Amino acid sequence: MSVETIRVSEIFGPTIQGEGALIGLPTVFVRTGGCDYRCSWCDSLYAVDSAFRDQWLPMSVEAIWQEVTKLSGGNPLTVSLSGGNPAIQPLRPLIELGHSKGYRFALETQGSVAQNWFRDLDVLVLSPKPPSSGMHTDWDQVDNCVRLSAGGPEIALKVVIFDDVDYAFAREVGQRYPYIPLYLQPGNHTPPPSEDEDARIDIDGVMDRMHWLVDKVTVDRWFAPRVLPQLHVLLWGNKRGV
Amino acid sequence: MSVETIRVSEIFGPTIQGEGALIGLPTVFVRTGGCDYRCSWCDSLYAVDSAFRDQWLPMSVEAIWQEVTKLSGGNPLTVSLSGGNPAIQPLRPLIELGHSKGYRFALETQGSVAQNWFRDLDVLVLSPKPPSSGMHTDWDQVDNCVRLSAGGPEIALKVVIFDDVDYAFAREVGQRYPYIPLYLQPGNHTPPPSEDEDARIDIDGVMDRMHWLVDKVTVDRWFAPRVLPQLHVLLWGNKRGV
Repeated sequence: MSVETIRVSEIFGPTIQGEGALIGLPTVFVRTGGCDYRCSWCDSLYAVDSAFRDQWLPMSVEAIWQEVTKLSGGNPLTVSLSGGNPAIQPLRPLIELGHSKGYRFALETQGSVAQNWFRDLDVLVLSPKPPSSGMHTDWDQVDNCVRLSAGGPEIALKVVIFDDVDYAFAREVGQRYPYIPLYLQPGNHTPPPSEDEDARIDIDGVMDRMHWLVDKVTVDRWFAPRVLPQLHVLLWGNKRGV
Repeated sequence: MSVETIRVSEIFGPTIQGEGALIGLPTVFVRTGGCDYRCSWCDSLYAVDSAFRDQWLPMSVEAIWQEVTKLSGGNPLTVSLSGGNPAIQPLRPLIELGHSKGYRFALETQGSVAQNWFRDLDVLVLSPKPPSSGMHTDWDQVDNCVRLSAGGPEIALKVVIFDDVDYAFAREVGQRYPYIPLYLQPGNHTPPPSEDEDARIDIDGVMDRMHWLVDKVTVDRWFAPRVLPQLHVLLWGNKRGV
């Protein structure tokens, strides 16, 4: 039995993964609380901003697993570990327990903290944050994440793009890691205020930015990355728990 | 130089692949003319119905390749071979030529005709048609397609779902081929009349059917398949050439 607890913002699902390499795949999400970043356009501040800290429950591995098992009816599926930055939580025992039950684990992180248990994951999505976030990427750490995953999980990169500067950043990411599948995702310009998940979402704007990004890669004849929207935003707006 | 010509309905792109295993990937489409099926809800009748036969150009491999090269600026990418049923065309020489230039080839077919050149593909998507299509699947032929691809392309299954009967069909497909990745796609209830690609598309209906399908798999705890919409329909309606 593991002694360390994990700070959990929410556990929900099953629903489909809305983004990136696993888009469309039924998933239970374990969203951890706390982040070493504070992106200007963060769409899950409730799991990042320490003002929401009292909403993050310190849970044992066993308690988390009980919830995942209940939600999935005990049928193995892919558990997505998100945040916040899930890489700052002690997740190894959770992954071990889940694997013993036949579940799979995907983790998404900005790549600022590398853990040797990344190797135990099934899928690792590294999502370095572009300039519009206001954050600075430590490439040595991203390199460490890649290195620590060698021989382990399927690995993918995802870059969120709000503008031309972000797009140039994404091109650099593609050049730096030519052998890692890269996913480009237009930014959500209308994330919900933290206190109102039902706030109107600008679907036309989301579509416009997909068109813009598809045009960019096709005009530039940059054919390596995939361009995908946030499918869950199209389907459910900014609603939480889906 | 190949002597046989290929019947081509249209060549367009680059745009992103809107469906299934390669969703989001920049692609040039080579859509062949002619089909051994006639699905009730076909969304590309102009490449299927022999009434449109005079619009299908018999093209040499070299002429097709010239067009693909022009559209892609000579930058290798994935060429999607679609139709109609591209499996009834003599595509081996086209694939050989493209491979020699560093391009990749994905082909989508209902699985009614198996070709030994399937092994030369990079991606094979088998899309057996559900009962709502009015077509009958010959499983021996689908098995042949799988068998002929062994050791060759990445293979995936895609099933379009309009109703509960189609959904039951998809479950059977999943049981028959448990080791092949399966993609579920809600049907397009408002395909365009062949003569009017700008006809209104029912985006709310598309979204409603995505919700319905996500609910089905999550309630049934069927966690293996991915559920994806036709992204190009969301982005461009039924417009052709995108």
